Amino acid sequence: MYTAIGYAAQTPTSPLLPMSFERRSPRADDVAIEILYCGVCHSDIHQARNEWGIAVYPLMPGHEIVGRVTAVGANVSKHKVGDLVGVGCMVDSCRECQACAKDLEQYCLAGPTMTYATPDRVDGSNTMGGYSNSIVVSEHFVLRMPHGLDLASAAPLLCAGITTYSPLKHHGVGPGHKVGILGMGGLGHMGIKFAKALGAEVTLFTRSAAKAEEARRQGADHVIVSSDAEQMRAAAGRFDFLLDTIPVQHDLNPYLDTLTFDGVHILVGLIEPVEPPLHAANLVLKRRVLAGSLIGGIAETQEMLDFSAEHGITCDIEMLDIRSINEAFERVIAGDVKYRFVIDMTTLKA
Amino acid sequence: MYTAIGYAAQTPTSPLLPMSFERRSPRADDVAIEILYCGVCHSDIHQARNEWGIAVYPLMPGHEIVGRVTAVGANVSKHKVGDLVGVGCMVDSCRECQACAKDLEQYCLAGPTMTYATPDRVDGSNTMGGYSNSIVVSEHFVLRMPHGLDLASAAPLLCAGITTYSPLKHHGVGPGHKVGILGMGGLGHMGIKFAKALGAEVTLFTRSAAKAEEARRQGADHVIVSSDAEQMRAAAGRFDFLLDTIPVQHDLNPYLDTLTFDGVHILVGLIEPVEPPLHAANLVLKRRVLAGSLIGGIAETQEMLDFSAEHGITCDIEMLDIRSINEAFERVIAGDVKYRFVIDMTTLKA
Repeated sequence: MYTAIGYAAQTPTSPLLPMSFERRSPRADDVAIEILYCGVCHSDIHQARNEWGIAVYPLMPGHEIVGRVTAVGANVSKHKVGDLVGVGCMVDSCRECQACAKDLEQYCLAGPTMTYATPDRVDGSNTMGGYSNSIVVSEHFVLRMPHGLDLASAAPLLCAGITTYSPLKHHGVGPGHKVGILGMGGLGHMGIKFAKALGAEVTLFTRSAAKAEEARRQGADHVIVSSDAEQMRAAAGRFDFLLDTIPVQHDLNPYLDTLTFDGVHILVGLIEPVEPPLHAANLVLKRRVLAGSLIGGIAETQEMLDFSAEHGITCDIEMLDIRSINEAFERVIAGDVKYRFVIDMTTLKA
Repeated sequence: MYTAIGYAAQTPTSPLLPMSFERRSPRADDVAIEILYCGVCHSDIHQARNEWGIAVYPLMPGHEIVGRVTAVGANVSKHKVGDLVGVGCMVDSCRECQACAKDLEQYCLAGPTMTYATPDRVDGSNTMGGYSNSIVVSEHFVLRMPHGLDLASAAPLLCAGITTYSPLKHHGVGPGHKVGILGMGGLGHMGIKFAKALGAEVTLFTRSAAKAEEARRQGADHVIVSSDAEQMRAAAGRFDFLLDTIPVQHDLNPYLDTLTFDGVHILVGLIEPVEPPLHAANLVLKRRVLAGSLIGGIAETQEMLDFSAEHGITCDIEMLDIRSINEAFERVIAGDVKYRFVIDMTTLKA
């Protein structure tokens, strides 16, 4: 065991504050990592404040982690000291079930061990995330950071990146497809980049006409103002896929109308009841599909990192001093960040 | 033109009554058919009573038609006089769009011409369905009835059959899959037969424990009483596919829970708003899919008929004298038919 430091919430209502805690010594299959950067995901806030009712305290968020290997266990073969590596939303899974056997650890039938606020599978301790100067993770769940990616800007790929890349790949998005991206936050702007890099014709759906120029800068070919009923009607039946990153309740029906027959509406941001209600006819009459998707498996996350390096894709970020994490949380809630805060972990030592 | 007779509604509130009307002389690509049997579908009632708001009167229902060819147009090559043939829900489509090019005439971008209450694409006349002694249909939309199928029991294959066969095939249901069928009416009992014939392990979900024996007689391997919360909980994560034939609003969430990751819940009966609301987390957290499906294309309908003949699959029917059609409508609404009324068209001549 060795002493680590990080920022954690002690209760649902307390701010994140520095704390010291013990990280385990690497087990035989573990990699110890000095954390260089960690992205700030909206789920970090939901969890710190127990808004999903599953928080365990002290709660140290952070699952968009990039760092350098400082030690490895005896059986580790995938990584070596000095390697630049990443850790995403998961640090373990059962590794035996049907989902794990298909490299879909995120759907592990026994439940994956999340990077924070989940009991470790070996010793039962509460996992502590990446708002910290170090982490110890089983090698299977440690990603190789490919050369050529800016490390800070690449950190959010570990969650925002894979969350958007995985469903686009799973549903076979490619050249010749018309893809709509719903919303342009942390997930949405990554969705634009990946859909474009996969060869699709990309349209941003946004409530705000003012975002048109910025959307084109991100790579969107077109912009549809979703609050403009006429623009929505004109888009009827035109899209093959919609990647819906909107994290709050919204009417899916006008969007479904923009899909052609066999069109697929993919939810990655919404984990609420669908209200106003989905109209079943919008699926039945055109054989449309409403799908969900959650992050991605470890092998696919590596594929996404390599794809990102090859295509020069990273997240647009604002670098953050960890001492401003609580103000940053408020700005994330207000939607006032383009598009992701990334903590520069040197500020933790200062 | 020649005179036909049939049963039609003259207004949304009037009963079906006999009427004489003109059928066109066969055009060059037309097949004229003497109708022997016609199934009674619940949509016939919705349309006769204008419950979908799109009825055109006089409205002569019927889209599960089996008959014998009596004449063919000069260019017809697919059928000849004396052939036993079927006509389903569609009698024409644009034949040029992306959907028609993929043999998915039911999703024709210009809208298919339905077998009744739709303007004919050539002369604009109101199509009149199969509650009649004859019909004239373009050869592409006329199916070949394979040898070995009982003609009366095969009539409902043209709608109830293809509606359940098509999504099972489209989603790749086969050996090794666990399939749940929701509801055991006209559609549900066909779903059991097709899923079983495709090699799946089949479970009927029903509110009524009393249906268990009958479900097994239809081929179901298991029965789950959906109103029994304990049985539903025990089924969590067990199914690969659900074929949902329930035509009225119902809570999809407990059913989605019974799907494993990547499981697919297929709606074929519901064309209402989904209430109580679908919970998006039920899709997102397990990459599940909610899909819709509408009848099937003409080529696939022929495939389904051939598959049915090969596997000895027909609909369980109650033969109907057309003079009792209005009483039959009431019994369909009450769910009091196992599982489809089929009109014996000799009763029309009587």
